Amino acid sequence: MEDIISLDHGSGGKKTSSLIEKLILPALGNPVLNELGDAAVLKGAEDLVFSTDSFVVSPYFFPGGDIGKLAVCGTVNDIAMQGGIPKYLSLALIIEEGLPAEDLRRVIASAAKAAEEAGVIIATGDTKVVERGKGDGIFINTAGIGFLACPGLSPKNIRPGDKVLVSGTVGDHGTAVMLARSPLLVSAELKSDCRALSALAQALYSLGPDLKVLRDPTRGGVATTLCEFAENTKNSVVLDEKSLPVRPQVRSACDILGLDPLYCANEGKLLAVVSAERAEEALALLKGTEGGEDAAVIGYVDDVHPGRVIEKTPLGTFRILTKLAGAQLPRIC
Amino acid sequence: MEDIISLDHGSGGKKTSSLIEKLILPALGNPVLNELGDAAVLKGAEDLVFSTDSFVVSPYFFPGGDIGKLAVCGTVNDIAMQGGIPKYLSLALIIEEGLPAEDLRRVIASAAKAAEEAGVIIATGDTKVVERGKGDGIFINTAGIGFLACPGLSPKNIRPGDKVLVSGTVGDHGTAVMLARSPLLVSAELKSDCRALSALAQALYSLGPDLKVLRDPTRGGVATTLCEFAENTKNSVVLDEKSLPVRPQVRSACDILGLDPLYCANEGKLLAVVSAERAEEALALLKGTEGGEDAAVIGYVDDVHPGRVIEKTPLGTFRILTKLAGAQLPRIC
Repeated sequence: MEDIISLDHGSGGKKTSSLIEKLILPALGNPVLNELGDAAVLKGAEDLVFSTDSFVVSPYFFPGGDIGKLAVCGTVNDIAMQGGIPKYLSLALIIEEGLPAEDLRRVIASAAKAAEEAGVIIATGDTKVVERGKGDGIFINTAGIGFLACPGLSPKNIRPGDKVLVSGTVGDHGTAVMLARSPLLVSAELKSDCRALSALAQALYSLGPDLKVLRDPTRGGVATTLCEFAENTKNSVVLDEKSLPVRPQVRSACDILGLDPLYCANEGKLLAVVSAERAEEALALLKGTEGGEDAAVIGYVDDVHPGRVIEKTPLGTFRILTKLAGAQLPRIC
Repeated sequence: MEDIISLDHGSGGKKTSSLIEKLILPALGNPVLNELGDAAVLKGAEDLVFSTDSFVVSPYFFPGGDIGKLAVCGTVNDIAMQGGIPKYLSLALIIEEGLPAEDLRRVIASAAKAAEEAGVIIATGDTKVVERGKGDGIFINTAGIGFLACPGLSPKNIRPGDKVLVSGTVGDHGTAVMLARSPLLVSAELKSDCRALSALAQALYSLGPDLKVLRDPTRGGVATTLCEFAENTKNSVVLDEKSLPVRPQVRSACDILGLDPLYCANEGKLLAVVSAERAEEALALLKGTEGGEDAAVIGYVDDVHPGRVIEKTPLGTFRILTKLAGAQLPRIC
């Protein structure tokens, strides 16, 4: 196995076999993937949850994670937000010619560790290589299958009086990746929150129909996700900025970079809308689960400004939050 | 909806919503995809077949198809080769900034048509945009789920005496894409064979355990796939070059380009290994199915040269075929 990935490694011939056998299977191998068939045969007899995401984050190593961990957690999280218990992932690589094999090895090892921690099997995969200048190091697509455990989660279930919860501090991933791009600003204290949310989601599934919707606020951040909850409904979401957990170093970095933590991507946080009656119970469930220690109730639903998200500022004034208009942080995931 | 894709279209905010609502859903929409959740809820109560492939073909339009059709057919085919009836696909785009929206529209329409023809639903998707010079127009990943109809297909089932069949002419896709890259060589007579193989595969499922293995010889071509059948076994595969169906224009193009049709990618052909007793029946099943009119028995299995593939040339001599060593045709799919 050479140190540098070449076009030959994507040919489908000997070099591809060598790459898979020497670099990928040692890290990711399991009885399903090891078959190396064109597709994987899965066991399942329930309703399924199926999701996909491509990851193009730049740089592909960043404080708190890398593209491999992100690619596994991202799809695991999409399944969990839809009420599924994640079970199987596919993992497909688009590699730029010239990538150091060691970088790929680290990324794959990181994906394998994240999959093990999240309890999912990477069941099938694919490898392509493109010419230098036609890609950017490494892009990863994952698709995932989960078994449906909590059916019916949807913004359509939201009603006035419901509470909005977040599982922890916001803005960590976006600021960590931005700082990784600016050598002058590197800070040891900032790191991505990249993590699998399946345990936190499953803790909330016990609320049954009192759990209305779950969503992980990635690209576009908390503000954009809340807008998606309210749009085309008769509900408004009121966000109390005071109660929003933000690390001081994230707030400082946002000030320096001219960013708003509400629009920064998160990769290890969930937003949940829960009935008022069970909001305290939901908060306790989150706080009692690893990764949810900083959970908070950050707002509520009413019908005063249908379709809108209103932020109550620390000064007691109000502003309307809209969806992210452009690419505040391109290639954040 | 602007004419040019910008970084903003991958932001996850308004522009992304606009791209999905105005360009993608009109072509691909269905009740599952229209939910636009992070993941899709599927109905299924059988063993599953799950596959993924990224497509980076250059150019992304070529005679006989485009990257959209290819991305759908490629994953449909991987599922069918594993004995699955394809049901659901994911479709994830990595778009280079500056891509004409019209190109994307054509590609998406083509994917939608291919999905309809193959009887699959595109159940979930994702869109990312990268900077100019960090991608190449458009890359597509598809992952797919099928229900297992013909379990146990594997090269492990192959025994001496078995026959090798191909569903039609070989080398069409590889030569068509290569010629599309060389304006001087363009020929109206050459086009990709890109098509869904699920109907042809399903025709053969009726053979039960007399059908040993199915594989679509894409990257690396027929020679590489046959090598995968023989390697690490006590079997050899003998290929009779005389009986291999190759269009005259493909043969001419290969001569000009210095290629071997046996190593050229196919995107609408399958190789099947079948017991000798039912080989004629298998041939009739293929010939009676659309896309299988040119099917042929092209070889057999023995145990004379374990692990090897031997080609019997038209002159009556023999040569050993090995796996494709490098990237004969980079970015062919």
